[in-house]
Order: sequence, then C-alpha cells, then structure tokens
Amino acid sequence: MMKLDRDLISLLLEHGLQEDLFQGNFGLEKEHIRVDAEGRIARTPHPAVFGNRLEHPYIRTDFAESQIELITPALPSIEEAYQFLGALHDLVALELKDEYLWPSSNPPILPADEEIHIAAMKDLVEDGYRQHLAARYGKRKQLLSGIHYNFSFREEFLKRLYEGSGETYSYQEFINNLYLRIARNTLKHRWLLIYLTGASPVFHKTYLERCVELNERISEDSYSFPKMNSLRNSVYGYRNHKPLYVSLESLEAYVQDLFALVKSGELIDVREYYSCVRLKTVRGHDLRSLLQEGVDYLELRMIDLNPLDKYGISLEMMQLIHLFLVSMMLLEDDSLDRNEQQLADLNHDSLVMNGIMGTWYGAEGEQAVLQDKALELLEGMDRLLQIIRPREEERLRRLLSQARLTVQQPEQSIAEVLRSQMQETPYADYHMELAKQYAEQSRSRSYNLSGYEDLELSTQLLLKAAIKRGISIDILDRRDNFVMLRKGDRIEYVKQATKTSLDSYSTVLMMENKVVTKKVLGRQGIRVPAGQEYRSIDEAAADYGKYRGRPIVIKPKSTNFGIGITIFKDEYSADDYRKALELAFEYDASVLLEEYIAGKEYRFLVMGGEVVGVLHRVPANVTGDGKHTIAELIDQKNRDPRRGTGHRTPLERIQLGEVERMFLQQQGRTPEDVPAAGEVVYLRENSNISTGGDSIDYTDEMPSSYKEIAVRAVEAVGAVFCGVDMIIEDIAKDANERNYCIIELNFNPAIHMHCYPYKGKNRRAEERILDLLFG
Amino acid sequence: MMKLDRDLISLLLEHGLQEDLFQGNFGLEKEHIRVDAEGRIARTPHPAVFGNRLEHPYIRTDFAESQIELITPALPSIEEAYQFLGALHDLVALELKDEYLWPSSNPPILPADEEIHIAAMKDLVEDGYRQHLAARYGKRKQLLSGIHYNFSFREEFLKRLYEGSGETYSYQEFINNLYLRIARNTLKHRWLLIYLTGASPVFHKTYLERCVELNERISEDSYSFPKMNSLRNSVYGYRNHKPLYVSLESLEAYVQDLFALVKSGELIDVREYYSCVRLKTVRGHDLRSLLQEGVDYLELRMIDLNPLDKYGISLEMMQLIHLFLVSMMLLEDDSLDRNEQQLADLNHDSLVMNGIMGTWYGAEGEQAVLQDKALELLEGMDRLLQIIRPREEERLRRLLSQARLTVQQPEQSIAEVLRSQMQETPYADYHMELAKQYAEQSRSRSYNLSGYEDLELSTQLLLKAAIKRGISIDILDRRDNFVMLRKGDRIEYVKQATKTSLDSYSTVLMMENKVVTKKVLGRQGIRVPAGQEYRSIDEAAADYGKYRGRPIVIKPKSTNFGIGITIFKDEYSADDYRKALELAFEYDASVLLEEYIAGKEYRFLVMGGEVVGVLHRVPANVTGDGKHTIAELIDQKNRDPRRGTGHRTPLERIQLGEVERMFLQQQGRTPEDVPAAGEVVYLRENSNISTGGDSIDYTDEMPSSYKEIAVRAVEAVGAVFCGVDMIIEDIAKDANERNYCIIELNFNPAIHMHCYPYKGKNRRAEERILDLLFG
Repeated sequence: MMKLDRDLISLLLEHGLQEDLFQGNFGLEKEHIRVDAEGRIARTPHPAVFGNRLEHPYIRTDFAESQIELITPALPSIEEAYQFLGALHDLVALELKDEYLWPSSNPPILPADEEIHIAAMKDLVEDGYRQHLAARYGKRKQLLSGIHYNFSFREEFLKRLYEGSGETYSYQEFINNLYLRIARNTLKHRWLLIYLTGASPVFHKTYLERCVELNERISEDSYSFPKMNSLRNSVYGYRNHKPLYVSLESLEAYVQDLFALVKSGELIDVREYYSCVRLKTVRGHDLRSLLQEGVDYLELRMIDLNPLDKYGISLEMMQLIHLFLVSMMLLEDDSLDRNEQQLADLNHDSLVMNGIMGTWYGAEGEQAVLQDKALELLEGMDRLLQIIRPREEERLRRLLSQARLTVQQPEQSIAEVLRSQMQETPYADYHMELAKQYAEQSRSRSYNLSGYEDLELSTQLLLKAAIKRGISIDILDRRDNFVMLRKGDRIEYVKQATKTSLDSYSTVLMMENKVVTKKVLGRQGIRVPAGQEYRSIDEAAADYGKYRGRPIVIKPKSTNFGIGITIFKDEYSADDYRKALELAFEYDASVLLEEYIAGKEYRFLVMGGEVVGVLHRVPANVTGDGKHTIAELIDQKNRDPRRGTGHRTPLERIQLGEVERMFLQQQGRTPEDVPAAGEVVYLRENSNISTGGDSIDYTDEMPSSYKEIAVRAVEAVGAVFCGVDMIIEDIAKDANERNYCIIELNFNPAIHMHCYPYKGKNRRAEERILDLLFG
Repeated sequence: MMKLDRDLISLLLEHGLQEDLFQGNFGLEKEHIRVDAEGRIARTPHPAVFGNRLEHPYIRTDFAESQIELITPALPSIEEAYQFLGALHDLVALELKDEYLWPSSNPPILPADEEIHIAAMKDLVEDGYRQHLAARYGKRKQLLSGIHYNFSFREEFLKRLYEGSGETYSYQEFINNLYLRIARNTLKHRWLLIYLTGASPVFHKTYLERCVELNERISEDSYSFPKMNSLRNSVYGYRNHKPLYVSLESLEAYVQDLFALVKSGELIDVREYYSCVRLKTVRGHDLRSLLQEGVDYLELRMIDLNPLDKYGISLEMMQLIHLFLVSMMLLEDDSLDRNEQQLADLNHDSLVMNGIMGTWYGAEGEQAVLQDKALELLEGMDRLLQIIRPREEERLRRLLSQARLTVQQPEQSIAEVLRSQMQETPYADYHMELAKQYAEQSRSRSYNLSGYEDLELSTQLLLKAAIKRGISIDILDRRDNFVMLRKGDRIEYVKQATKTSLDSYSTVLMMENKVVTKKVLGRQGIRVPAGQEYRSIDEAAADYGKYRGRPIVIKPKSTNFGIGITIFKDEYSADDYRKALELAFEYDASVLLEEYIAGKEYRFLVMGGEVVGVLHRVPANVTGDGKHTIAELIDQKNRDPRRGTGHRTPLERIQLGEVERMFLQQQGRTPEDVPAAGEVVYLRENSNISTGGDSIDYTDEMPSSYKEIAVRAVEAVGAVFCGVDMIIEDIAKDANERNYCIIELNFNPAIHMHCYPYKGKNRRAEERILDLLFG
C-alpha cells in the first residue's frame, strides 16, 4: 500500500539533499474561546491591549468576539514555530484579567444563540462573511476551534531538487506539482493523522442539544458518540454542508473547481472551503495569485486542540506531522480522482466515528481494519527513514515507534485518554482545571517570553511589548539578540533592546571611550571624575606620589561590568597600588586613574530626553541570621527565581569567586563565617547587577535637579538611549556643582532591571523604546 | 641674581605637583612670506583652497597678502603643538604651486613699496588696521615675520596650587598674579631667550636701503650690523616708535595703562602694543574680558623664524623656552617698575646689537658681561631642576647644558651660524636653497599629516582636508583615531575617518553581522552567497557530503581582514575541509560556509548614496625577474615608500608568514624559488590591502549597472559610508541577476586606498566625507 517513489528518493540522495528534505518553513494558527472562571463563554470584547485586530499580525479574532486567534509567522524550524506559538499563548494568557483560554476544540457551555457574539470586526467584508457563516452553519459550529499547520519546503531545497531533476517544465510548475502530490497523498491518508491528533471526543450538551439522547453519556452534562475520535472533524463538526469535490490533479483544475463553487453560490468565498488540506499563497485566499505565482505552502486544517497540552499541541506532534508530510511527498505519485476522494472521505468518517478499529475502504471494494492499514503506513515511513538516513534518523524513528504504540493501544490515543478522564466529571470543571493550571504556568515567569528564554531579558521584554502592539518581530540572529521590528512600512533593526537606529554610530563610540566621554561632558560643565590615562604600568606606578593618600579608582579604559576595577578609599601602599594597576592592565592596554567620588551611585535610564527610571544598585550582599554561613546565605538568596545568569533573569546570582573571596578577606572574613542576625555582609565593591547586585527603584524619590543633569549629559553625546551612572552625595539635597559626578555613560543600558527591580515599580522601559521607534 | 622662591617650591613639592608644573597648554603662531622660485615676494593672492581667511582657525594672512600665518590651537603638550605646526607647514607647502615659504624672519628681496600688497581682508576693521600700520611703520617692517609662543598652565595644576597655597584672595586673582609674575621675570631676563633664539642677523639691502653703507657687508647684496643677533628684535625691527611703559604690577594697572595708550592715540589698537610678552585671554584682544575673566595665557613674541629648521623652530627650542617660563615663575617675586623695565629694554638692545659679549646693566649702575649673567641664569635653572626633580630631569638638564654651550661659544649661536653660512652667498640663493629643500621634504610623503603619522592614514587624510577647509580639529583620542571636527556651531565626532554620526548604530551592527547582512540584502533581491552558519565543528564537518565537489568559502562569522578564511575552488578532502573549519573556529564561535563565487572582487566605496571609488584588489604578489628569489622580490617590492604597516601608508608591506608560506607550498613553491622573468607569483588567496594586496582603481571603467547595485545594497542597510565587496564575473558585461554577488558590507571602509591606489587616480574620498558632514 505504501509504495515509495524510488526515483525521487535516488534523486535526493544523489544530490546530498537528505538533510534539506527535513528542513522547511512552519507556521501555526490556533483559536481558543475566552471563558470566565466558571467556564462560560466570555462576554467581554477582544482585549484592547492588542490594538487593531484587522492589522495585528499575530493576535486576531476568528468567528466570535470571544474566539481569539493566535497566528505565528512562517518560521524556519518546527522548534521556532512551536516557541512562537507558546510565546503568543503565554502573552495572551497574561493579559486576560479573570479570563481563561478554553483548552478544547469543542466549545464551552454555550448560552442561547443570541448571546453568542459574532466578532465585531468593524469591516464590511469581514462582518458580512461572519453573518453568512452564522446563518448557513449556525453559530455553535463556528465556535469549534482548532489548529492549522502550515508547511513549505525551503526554496534552496526546491531549487536544487528542480535542477537535479532535469525536468523540462518550469520551476514553478515543478513546485506546484510537488505540493499537489503531497496534498493528494495527505488527503488520502489523512485519517491516520486525525487518529493521532483527534482530541474532541466529548462535547457539552448545549452543543448538540437536539440529539444528546442518541449519544453516549460521559458525565452529567457531557456526551460523546461511541468510539468517536474528533467531533470537530465529524459530520457534526466544522464541515461544508455537502461533500465538495475539488480536483488536485493540477493547479489549474484546483483553481477552476474552486472558482466554479464560488460562482455557483455553493461557497460565498474560497475561505468557506473547509478541506483538510489547502494549497495556499502568501497573498492569502486570492485564487488568481495562486494560479499566477504558484503554491507557496500547504495548510493542514484537521488538527484539534489537545487539552492535555498547555499550548494545544506538543512539539513532538508537530514533528510527527512534518514527518508525515515529507513521507507523503515520497509516495508513488498516484492521482486522486473523484472516486478516490470519496473513498478518502469515507475512511475519514470511519475513523472519526469508529476509531482505529473501524473499517478501511479500498478501491474496488477492498476492506480492512484501519489499525492494520495504519501500521502499514507507519512501517512505510520507517522504511523511508532507513533509506534516507537523515542525521536525525534515530529521533524520527522514535516518533514513529510512539505513533505505532498509539495505534496498537487505542486507549492511549488522546481522544480515549480524554474520554476516560472526563468520565463522571462535569464538562466545565474538567476543562477549567486544566485552563487554570496552564494560566498559572504562564504567570510563573511572567518576565520571560516563552520559548525565547535564551535571549537577553531586555530583548524578551521588548519582543513581548512589540507582539502585544501588533509589531511584527523577526529574530535575525538569536545569539546576537538582533531583531527586526516592522509595523506597516516602518522597519527597525534592534540589537540587545537598546541598540537602535536612533543612536548614531559616533554617539555610541563616544560613550564607549571613557576618555572621550569625560572630555565631552567636562566641556559642557558636567562634573566628571578628574583623572589621567596611562599606557604602561611603570608610567602609572611612577605617579604613586601624586595620588598617595587621595581616594582613587583604577580601571581599564574600555571594559564594562566592573571587571578589573579597584577602588582605594583610604591609605594604600605602593605595592597595593601597583597590584591594582597590574589587574587593570590585564583587561586593557590603557588604564584610567580617577579620583574616587564619595556618595551613592545611581543609574539613570534616559530615553528620548527623559528619565524613564532611576535605580540605586547595592553591591552583592547577604543579611546574616546568626545561623547560616555567608556561603549558605548566598545559596539561599540565589534561590530567588528572579536570580539567574547571563541577563536572562531580572537579577543575577551572587557568585563566590576570587573577587568575592578577596573582598571578604579584606574585611577579615571567610565564606564560612556566620554573620550575626541582621548584619549585612557585602561581597563586592562594585554594585553592578551583573555581579549579583540588588536593584532598588528611586525614580520617584530622585530630585529633578539630578534628572536634569542626567538628561543634559545624554544630550551632550547626542544619545537617545543611555544609562547614566551618577554618584550623588546625598539625594536629600538638590544638585550643585560639587555634590555629584557622572562616572559613566552606557550606550546599551539594560532595561530589565528597571522593569523588575529588587524593590520598586515596573518602569515599562520596553514600551518607551517602542514609543520612540514607532511612536 | 637668580633667587628662587623657596616657599613656592616647597608648596609644589608638598602637594606632589612637580610633574604637573611641567605640564601646560601650548600654542604657536608663525608667519612666512610666500616667494617665487627666485626668492621674490609672491604677487599671487592667498591660496583659495584655504577658504575664508577671516574664519579660518589655522591659516590666515598677516600684514601682507603674501604673508601667510599659521596658527596652532592650544594643545596639551609641546610635542602636539610642534606636530600641529609641522602639519600646517607641510600642508601649506604642498598647496603652493611654484611658490615657497621664505624661511627667515627678515624679508626676501623687496620690490618698491607700492608693489608690496597689503592683505585684502575684505573687512573694514582689518583693512583699516593694516593701512594704519603701513602708514605708521612702513610696509617693509611689517613684513618681518616671527613666531609667537603661547603658554598656560593646566587648570587642574593651578587649582591644586591655589588650594595648597591657602591664599585668601580669589582663585582668579591668584592666577592673574602668577602669570604677571612670570611676565615680569620673563621681560627682565628676555635677553637670554633672544640670544638663544635670535635668527635674523643678516638682511637684504632692499630692507634698509638708506643705511646699508653703515653696516657690515655679508655678501654682494646682504648686510648686517657687527655682532647683531636679531634685526627683528632690534630698533630696526618690529617695534613701537618709542618705548611704551605698561605696568605689570597688577592686572588692573596693565589694563589701565594699555587703555590709556589707545585713548591717547599712541596705539590705534591694543594689537599694536609690540611687547615681547603679552597677557592674553582666549577672547582675543578684548581688554575688558581680560580684566573680568582674568589671564588665560601668556604670549611670547620675540622668537625669530630659525631658517636652519624646516618648521622655523625646533622641538628642543620649544622645550627650552618652556623651561625658561617655568623658571621665571619660581624666581623670587620682584616688582618691575618703570626703571627696571628700562633696564630690561637696555639689556635687550645690548644683546640684540652686540651679542652675548655685550654689556649687562644692573640696578644702581651695576654692569657685567651678558655671558656671565647668562651662565648664572642657566645655573639657577639647573639648580631648580635638582630641587624639583621632575621625572624628565635628565632631559631638561641636557637642554640646559646645550644652552650653556651656546652661551660659552657664541659662534655656535643660530645668529652666528647664519652669519657665517651666508658669507659670500647671495641673500636669495642662500634662503631659496633651504626653502626648496624643505618643500621637497614636505612633498616626500605627501599623503601624511606631519607629526600625526601614528594615526591611521584615512584619519590623516581627513584631518588634512579639514584643516585646509578651516574646519577645527581636535584629536580626542589618538590611539583610537577619534577626532572632533567643528565648523561654526556644527560639531561632528569621527572615529577612523568613516565612523560618524551619519550612520546609525543599528546600521553598523547589521553590517557587522554577516548573517544579518545577507538576510537583509537577500530580501531586497540582491544576490548574496548561499550558505549556512555553523556553531560547532562537528555539525559543519557532518555536512561535508553536502558541499563536496562544490566551490566553497569557509569563514569566521565576524572577523575582518580575511583572517581565518579558506577558499576551496576544486575538489577537497574531508580532511582539508575539517582543517579549514578548525582554522575558522579559532576566530569565532560561529562559522559561515558559503558558496564560492567565481569572478573578480571589487570594492565599491559608497558615500551618501554615490559611488566615490571602485577598486580591484590583487592579492599580494611579486613579479619574477629570473634572478631573484621570491623572498628577495618581496623585499624589493616592500621598499616602495607607499608600503608600510598598520594602515599608516597607502599600501601594506607583503608579509612572508605562515599563511603566505602555506599558500606557496600549495603551489609547490618555496620562498627560495626564483620565478621566471615576468611570472607573477601570488602569496595570498585573499586580496585585502591589509595583507599586502595591490589596489587598482576601476572607478571610471566600472559599468553603472554594478554601481547601482552597490548603492542599492548600501540603501538596504541604510548606511551613509560603506565599502561594498562585490564579486563580478566580467565587467565587460552589464549586471544581471546571476553574474555578480555581494560578499560583504564594510561599515568602516578605508579611504586611503581610493586616494593613493597602486594604480589609478586619487578619488579624494576625504573631501566627500567632509561634504557630507558639513556640506
């Protein structure tokens, strides 16, 4: 039954395309009904925070006002599409106040029809289309929600395959034929995918009120059909009134047949063609561009929301579906005429209503058990992997083993697990328990963008804010935290959240060079530490006499994060002095020797000429309890979920490295000491968050005189985004010429510490960045 | 006679100020008469290339149209002031077509008065002032040229000295008093400085026509007075008609006396007060600001142009003058009343007319030989150094020994050397030989900015162009090639010539990241090499089968200058492939594997949306002569003065390092092989100038279709300054979709290679940068 196309496979192997075969572009769309805490359909409008839903690239509404739709862009790997979906899901869940995302394809408890509100799109075409659907299919059916899975091969792969094939027809025709072939084979064998993904076996009595008597009762208010796998894919689900036959033999035939259906009034719009597989272009539903520009991707539409998975689908299931599609390409290229389409529909219905033990119908009256045919198909896919031997062969074969198990043990299928779990549990209770559990998970690390935890937290915050506003995001280089943001025609490239087009290169270079920064600020009458630059240890060492007895800071010219810096507040020997120089020269060929300014250091985050936040940073510290050692106290403090490493959490873990040990030693302590209750022990001289410091918000407390100085300093270098580090003697007094000093300007200020300080308010710096870039 | 101020010295030592004492700000102004090749005063107008002389900060005209004036800004070291003067001198010399800078303070052969053209300033005040001078002193005297030496202490030093002094009067008063004290002592002992610097003993007969008979004849057309040291400082020189007494006891007295002289008509303007020492403010000649804001610096005005030195003064002489001024500060604080001023004038004249063996006149009729008094003074300065012991003590004492020698052996003084060298040589011949020799020196490395050869050549070119246009330059960080340019209110910060405010930070970051660059260009339909990024050697090594047999480039993701890059054009073994990966991974954690594009590589320099220059770069190579080895040929080629190291010459020296040896080995050669005559041997695969490549200008030959693509690419990333590296199959054919490929965008393109290519025209890229920044 599963005949492989040996020629095509040879072609792939010959051109070394076995890895590229498993690459592709992936996109997901899914709907959820918003419900209240009792599992009733929400009566609130689509959340305003998501802006104009007609223009929003990721967050829209489907049929009903309460039916939120999440759309990922086409992404170059399954993992990325999955992560993006997760990010959207969590972000939406976080914005819902006292509402939840209903986790099932089957609707929640439904009110009377007139209380189901059609989405208010405020668009003539959109509103008209939804009115038509409500009238033709009834509002209830339209509330069935699901997942669409979009897939295309990468262009490079297609081109090389085409070149290798030696075909005489055009490249575009070649692609069209390839996708048509996958579409035909997928339609034919789709019943297997539906078995594996079907997750809507049980429905509430309000969904099918007229005929609940005929059905299997699951709990006091929920029903099913015996062995039913997916209500949504059944005749009671989301389906055209009568079977519509659209040819898949050629793109011309496909388009002609669809045109004819619309022309005859059978469909009001191409969108109304509820096929399990659609041929799509990036231009949406326009048949003319489909014909002219060819197929861009395939859309699979029969996938149910899996209530057992937080995001409605698992990564493994996405991988399995992908493997299925790739296999469908490598089957022998059979046609799928009207008869064969009818047979495929028959098998679809047989599976949906009777499960995997149902009957399989073949050509010329052949019959078998679906289970046997499923095993044959899976066996064929496995054989294929063994021939192609992609790098991921082992992982892919494990996916197939898992599927085989589900076929052999139908009670392990999602639908049967759900049916069994829902026995005797009221319909809403079952779903709401899951919905609330998932919402809790979304909230647990609310500062993260799910799936993107490897990005710097500042970038995660920026991307979350962008997605919410309907600004398209495109991560150009993940390691570099380099993203493209787009809204309409406006494109902005941003690295590490605050490196943008708004700052000029020379401005950044000025801030990067401490000598230049000081010169430029000094000329504006802004106080900077007096000091000198040295290029050799000996030259600097010779000046010991000049500094002796004066408080100084010795630091490498261009390193950041407090590395290589020594501060001498009191007396220091020529030897100490030389050692500090040696340390600094390890990090830079130039070292700065500056006067040490007494006072507290504050970070002013200046954006677009305004102070967005002010933080005081306290060096890494622990507070004693009279029982635990310093080392233990550090461990305890590090357990705070806000502490992590590498700028991926609001605060960094306190280290106990050489610097910290040396600093303790200077205080005559060891990590094994037990500090008294209430005693604060500092582990660092410098107060950078990156070395375990605590951030305390002072935005409201800081006198405006200092804020004005910070803004003037940023203006002096012409920066838009800047972190100003200022030492202030005492914020109880207003600024004068001598009681402050700016020690550094930072061209890439971290924003997360102003959004999630150790103590204080969220200053929403990410929103200001977007205001300035797109406002 | 030389009584040191022990209290002041103790104060300095106590506060560790002995180094700061020898710091300061230094500025020079000097004039030269422009002459033709025969030594006649030039009749051409001030060169137009220097723009508006009234607004030019560095290059103006003094009294006569042909009297060019070079002005350095105040710079924080003697070396920098000297270098700036040299840079101005060379730059002006280079712009003079068939004209020369007359090297002496005494004028060249003079025509009739009516043919000496007063500078046409096109300014009422300026022109009126010069008319007055011509009428009062005669045009000839005004043609005497010299050097003004401006000096101030650093503010930090003055502040600390003031704080240490415990004085009760104001800081400003303290400074005024300090400079007044130096001025008084300098006036008193100025005859020593004049002796050491005097360099105008001989004049042409046209200067003093009426009285040549009375003088010592030096050659057929030149004369002197017996033992005369400096005509310019003599009664025949640049001097007010009668001695004017201006008090230096207090700033108020100084200002009052000067005001009175102007009020009485004795002087038309404060400028006309030809004292050897002036108290100045940065606001020019405004007495009111001098009184209100205090003394900013001292101006010494008695220094002759030394014809024996290319730049008119040597670095050592500047250092000696500085030491003299510092010593004058540390002498006992005597007053200088009218009587004492007269005595000082007497000693001045005695020295000027009779030399060091002349008489010294002291108070109350005391007399001595100037030579003895000179040795006393130098002895005192030496004693001072031994007390203060600055780090540079040894060097400074050597300067004093040298001065002592000149005092002891008057025939070694500049004036006597000149007098002796000019014996029997016609006046113009003697000076023109020097003038032409200096001009030749200026021309020898015309691409350099003299004294700034440590800067990158691109920065040197930019600074030269800026100086010429009258844009002020300020080198903020020399190592970083970081400069500030200012014209009127407009300030621009520039690093490495092409890192400016015109490019945004995100644009630079895009170009810096090759993956992002390719994505952005690719989306604009611009051809970039297909390829893939790898994060591990194993991952990349596993793809060997995919690339085998296809030409590829393996390169680190973000390094530049061709480092770590391997190109495979033909077959390559899995082992070669792995080694190339290992090399690339040494330089970056990410490595790109790209298709290799056949063709020649061109660098398009795009500035402000236009292609300024196109270069083809040929990899480092030598051409055989049938006699010399490859190593010898490299040596020969490297002798070209245009080849150097570190971007400080138009071309880089060819290395014979590991990469070159390996490349020779791949061709089956060793550095000891002798290539046939005419045979070209390449030493590198990559063609970067930085690794010894040759640059050949193709700006005029390049079809516009490629130029348009280069401009489009630069627009795609939004850059203003960009170097586009494009591979082109054949420039005989116009661009189409497949016959070119952009392999890199460079955000800091070197400009010098377009200005001084190995073959081709100077594209004056530095002028375009200034047009864009200030245009």
